[in-house]
Amino acid sequence: MRLVTFKDGRGTRVGALDAAGQVLDITAVDAGLPTDMVGLIAAGAVAAAQAAAAKAPVVAGATLLAPIPRTPKNIFCVGKNYHEHAKEFAGSGFDGGAKDVVPPFPVVFSKPHTSIIANGEPILSAMDPTGGLDYEGELGVVIGTGGRGISKADALKHVFGYTIVNDVTARHLQRRHSQWILGKGLDTFAPMGPAILTADECPDPTKLVLTTWLNGDQRQHAPVSDLIFDIPTLVEAISAAITLEPGDVIATGTPAGVGIGFNPPRFMKAGDVVRIEVPGIGILENPVA
Amino acid sequence: MRLVTFKDGRGTRVGALDAAGQVLDITAVDAGLPTDMVGLIAAGAVAAAQAAAAKAPVVAGATLLAPIPRTPKNIFCVGKNYHEHAKEFAGSGFDGGAKDVVPPFPVVFSKPHTSIIANGEPILSAMDPTGGLDYEGELGVVIGTGGRGISKADALKHVFGYTIVNDVTARHLQRRHSQWILGKGLDTFAPMGPAILTADECPDPTKLVLTTWLNGDQRQHAPVSDLIFDIPTLVEAISAAITLEPGDVIATGTPAGVGIGFNPPRFMKAGDVVRIEVPGIGILENPVA
Repeated sequence: MRLVTFKDGRGTRVGALDAAGQVLDITAVDAGLPTDMVGLIAAGAVAAAQAAAAKAPVVAGATLLAPIPRTPKNIFCVGKNYHEHAKEFAGSGFDGGAKDVVPPFPVVFSKPHTSIIANGEPILSAMDPTGGLDYEGELGVVIGTGGRGISKADALKHVFGYTIVNDVTARHLQRRHSQWILGKGLDTFAPMGPAILTADECPDPTKLVLTTWLNGDQRQHAPVSDLIFDIPTLVEAISAAITLEPGDVIATGTPAGVGIGFNPPRFMKAGDVVRIEVPGIGILENPVA
Repeated sequence: MRLVTFKDGRGTRVGALDAAGQVLDITAVDAGLPTDMVGLIAAGAVAAAQAAAAKAPVVAGATLLAPIPRTPKNIFCVGKNYHEHAKEFAGSGFDGGAKDVVPPFPVVFSKPHTSIIANGEPILSAMDPTGGLDYEGELGVVIGTGGRGISKADALKHVFGYTIVNDVTARHLQRRHSQWILGKGLDTFAPMGPAILTADECPDPTKLVLTTWLNGDQRQHAPVSDLIFDIPTLVEAISAAITLEPGDVIATGTPAGVGIGFNPPRFMKAGDVVRIEVPGIGILENPVA
């Protein structure tokens, strides 16, 4: 099932997508379902949502929001987690301090909820006055059952589902500030969506494939199986330090093909459109304004 | 006024401290006051809280929580923001990637709400199996009126008040993961409190002085006027990128005297007690368990 957060004239609530991509009003037919996505995740209400979807009406005029408009914590993001991208980043000169091309341990930073926008909403280029705007298409892992000290073996049991995150980056600010939140956590720099593919329909996330286009040109294309630190390793590493909660999101890192991978770099500008697809989840497309 | 969050047999709510440090039950005498700190900050209810404190009863058996047990976003933290500390950090060998002793731009990272603990609660040494547990006494700035693009000139108008944060750090994890959230954002690694000193009683925060003791030995002692990037500069730099919200906290960086400043480093261990005082705000003291 693909779950979404949407709004219409009656307010904001969770829904499911049908095969045609129409929004089904699941809380209209099951008043016991939480109406917000974090609540639904915390309640573990996948089966109830599925049952509701089977008889729910289609919503006319629904506007999709990010599936989790406000994550419980800042989004966890992973840097340099595909081999070819780690090489292009090292070769770009933008990775000021790093000694290793491939990091020996996961590189984790965060983006606050204020950076999250929905499919279709504009990425604001004016947020980066230094002119280094770049995209990073990524698979997002949505945590279901929380916990600390989750082992690799148990990790996928703690995954509620999968979404797409664009880890938009202001490259010059990323380098300037050394730690990355001010170069990556800017308002509108975390497009997320369009939906969460629930884990029951994706038993092996390494089979997912991510493709990114800028203005129709394919820029990134990689299977999730190419991750340096795979999803169980990331869940284990993060939860060894930090209690994960239902609705927390881990953006797992980006493949090769970002703008700074070119020489000279090819940054985004107002008028561009960045489109990320993961078959099964959907398409996350955002204009740059 | 010093505001706190506390709990007793009747639940969790905001209170004020009297001159003797007793908790005054301000919401018991003004039912219009929000009962949680972020709500009170968002409502700008300082004058109402002050009026309530003047006639509020003392709470018997109150236990203090962190003044903001759950910040709207991860806590913003600033690295290498006192000159002498920047030198000791560079000299320690723990600052793997850095080229500059004094950073040319603020170094900002984050700690999630799950790391926040109250005055008196234990810092869990078992969270760091690598044995590199260190303290960092810091002044915390609490945002009142939110916003983006706040200028230095306007910054202090957006400050609700001041608290103390211990930016507890697992030094080996900080270095290993390159980006700092996994070395600094661990559960129990953000003691905060005991209270928020409201900004009306602290018109010039550069006059505040911070002192840290480990097991009674003075380790850090510096005036806030020694900050490399002062509070208005930090508010301007962060809000240029990220919309600040009522109740967001900025931990402004730590002075010289941390454990890795010694040769060899002097890390904390179970049984230690770390005590941080900022006169006017109070004392934040936590055992290491």
